[in-house]
Amino acid sequence: MSHMLDEIHQQPEVIRRLLAREKEAVSELAKEIRSKDIRFIVLAGRGTSDHAAVYGKYLLEVKNGYPVALADLSVFTLYDAKLRMEQVLVIGISQSGQAADVAEYLQRSKDLGALTVAITNVPGSLLTTIAHHTILCHAGEELGVAATKTYTSTLAALFLLSACLADVPQEADKLILCSEAMQQVMALEPYIVDRAERYRYMHDGYVISRGFNYCTAMEMALKLAETSYTGLNAYSAADFLHGPIAAVHESDPCFLIAPPGKAYENMLDIAKRLCERKAEIVVLSSETEILALATTAFKVDVTVPEELSPLVYIVPGQLLANYLALARGNDPDRPRGLSKVTITR
Amino acid sequence: MSHMLDEIHQQPEVIRRLLAREKEAVSELAKEIRSKDIRFIVLAGRGTSDHAAVYGKYLLEVKNGYPVALADLSVFTLYDAKLRMEQVLVIGISQSGQAADVAEYLQRSKDLGALTVAITNVPGSLLTTIAHHTILCHAGEELGVAATKTYTSTLAALFLLSACLADVPQEADKLILCSEAMQQVMALEPYIVDRAERYRYMHDGYVISRGFNYCTAMEMALKLAETSYTGLNAYSAADFLHGPIAAVHESDPCFLIAPPGKAYENMLDIAKRLCERKAEIVVLSSETEILALATTAFKVDVTVPEELSPLVYIVPGQLLANYLALARGNDPDRPRGLSKVTITR
Repeated sequence: MSHMLDEIHQQPEVIRRLLAREKEAVSELAKEIRSKDIRFIVLAGRGTSDHAAVYGKYLLEVKNGYPVALADLSVFTLYDAKLRMEQVLVIGISQSGQAADVAEYLQRSKDLGALTVAITNVPGSLLTTIAHHTILCHAGEELGVAATKTYTSTLAALFLLSACLADVPQEADKLILCSEAMQQVMALEPYIVDRAERYRYMHDGYVISRGFNYCTAMEMALKLAETSYTGLNAYSAADFLHGPIAAVHESDPCFLIAPPGKAYENMLDIAKRLCERKAEIVVLSSETEILALATTAFKVDVTVPEELSPLVYIVPGQLLANYLALARGNDPDRPRGLSKVTITR
Repeated sequence: MSHMLDEIHQQPEVIRRLLAREKEAVSELAKEIRSKDIRFIVLAGRGTSDHAAVYGKYLLEVKNGYPVALADLSVFTLYDAKLRMEQVLVIGISQSGQAADVAEYLQRSKDLGALTVAITNVPGSLLTTIAHHTILCHAGEELGVAATKTYTSTLAALFLLSACLADVPQEADKLILCSEAMQQVMALEPYIVDRAERYRYMHDGYVISRGFNYCTAMEMALKLAETSYTGLNAYSAADFLHGPIAAVHESDPCFLIAPPGKAYENMLDIAKRLCERKAEIVVLSSETEILALATTAFKVDVTVPEELSPLVYIVPGQLLANYLALARGNDPDRPRGLSKVTITR
């Protein structure tokens, strides 16, 4: 078994552990944030951590009412900007805690008056020495180069923070139901092993979702790129209609992440349009109508609130990334040209 | 001649017209914004307008010190968020001024206390009836479905606004030099006509840049998708190293946008790494060292400040999109499945 597969399976347990160990501290942290009249939030991360930040942006805007920006790290690391950071909360995300550009962004933000929080899996790492506060992922060491359990536990940390900021910490207990749903969705594994063969020669295509699961589309495309070297484009459904849909050719593979919720009708519409273009449609959903349009239907046989569905819906994507790598004769734990910690400036 | 090609050539004149007609009004608008203690800016657009927003984010952060967010429109249109919008400036961008989701974002932001500005090419359009203030692009009617002159004039409008917000309106006069540089870069046209043949069967690949020209990578990828149906992935150079580079295969086409400036060294590094992977490298640059690594070298024989280079460097990308469409037997003015105004909610 690859480290990656092992770590995919650890995720439900990691989510429960994070909740148990961090709930009290994050509740205190949220009290401090609320006491400081924070007006805006900036989320900073690269790669998988940036996808977690995309999730955090939807969550903190929709559930908490803060306008949220995703950091362009280079405004500090290349362009030496003087951002007005008073009343701003900056959350830096890095599983290793060693990302140099995220660290610099946090340090500069702090110097400019921001309140800073690190979300990381490694106690004592660089980010924790800079940020005022730290939320730990408690995922255990991650050996797979393609991040899996540190991604979902970062989403869980953001969900916990959001619930506490809204002063409803009991909302965070929904993570327990979510962890059970993640366990149940593992039942798709034999089907994914089987279907991975079909995509052995897939070279490029599309992963599309919207709203809370836009992050899932980005993260699934990245997992497949890292382990199976496919150049899938990730799009939000609305942006996709503003141009990129023109480039979809007959039989191009299009992965649609379509849980029930506010974004579902849009996804159903996209699925129908892609059917007209004779694209190959792969659907991740619990909903019969959209699954019926798919060549490959990953039936996600559980329901969680839409804002928690990204933790569940990424799991089939991670499993496919692992098994597609194997079908191609690649080692999912040794992506060519990548190492576990990428340092960029 | 296609409408698209005609409109590409109109751009230098459009930029001069916008400066002449809007400088005074934008200078007044900037005074009002400065008088209101705006703390945070949100930019809202879809497709090409979103790429202009990406440019605006770098510009307003680096040159003006405002933290800037790109709007996820669905937080209002799907999720009915209650964002705290006092002391926030929301800038809605739509060439037609009819984008329903951008209009809704502006209206909701205004209701929640934001100061609102529309940037559009169409006087009297929906966005102008909602926003407190309007900046017009003065591009003349755009007949090509693939936006060109409305894109660069939106960048110019943002540059003008940034200069006025910094209380150095004379900085905006650099747009005149920029318009001359855009004219000079048209000299690449015969070379682009010739080289377009080589990419007749290109199906997918990468467009990479960083910092101020990240928007150029996104916009060039979109133009090629719209007119030539290529599924190019656009990446910021730093994000590219955090995973996607693993998916680059031998001879995959990689377009690198590399003007001189703070992002140049990064781009040179990426070019070398891609050479090692035997990717096909297409470079847009004025710099000899990186051009020497290219199979196809678009030598941009002019120099403008890095923050204005996106207006110049998109031009070869637009020309390539037009001529590649012709080489493929497509009509650049009639992309399949797209119309001039895309309405999404």
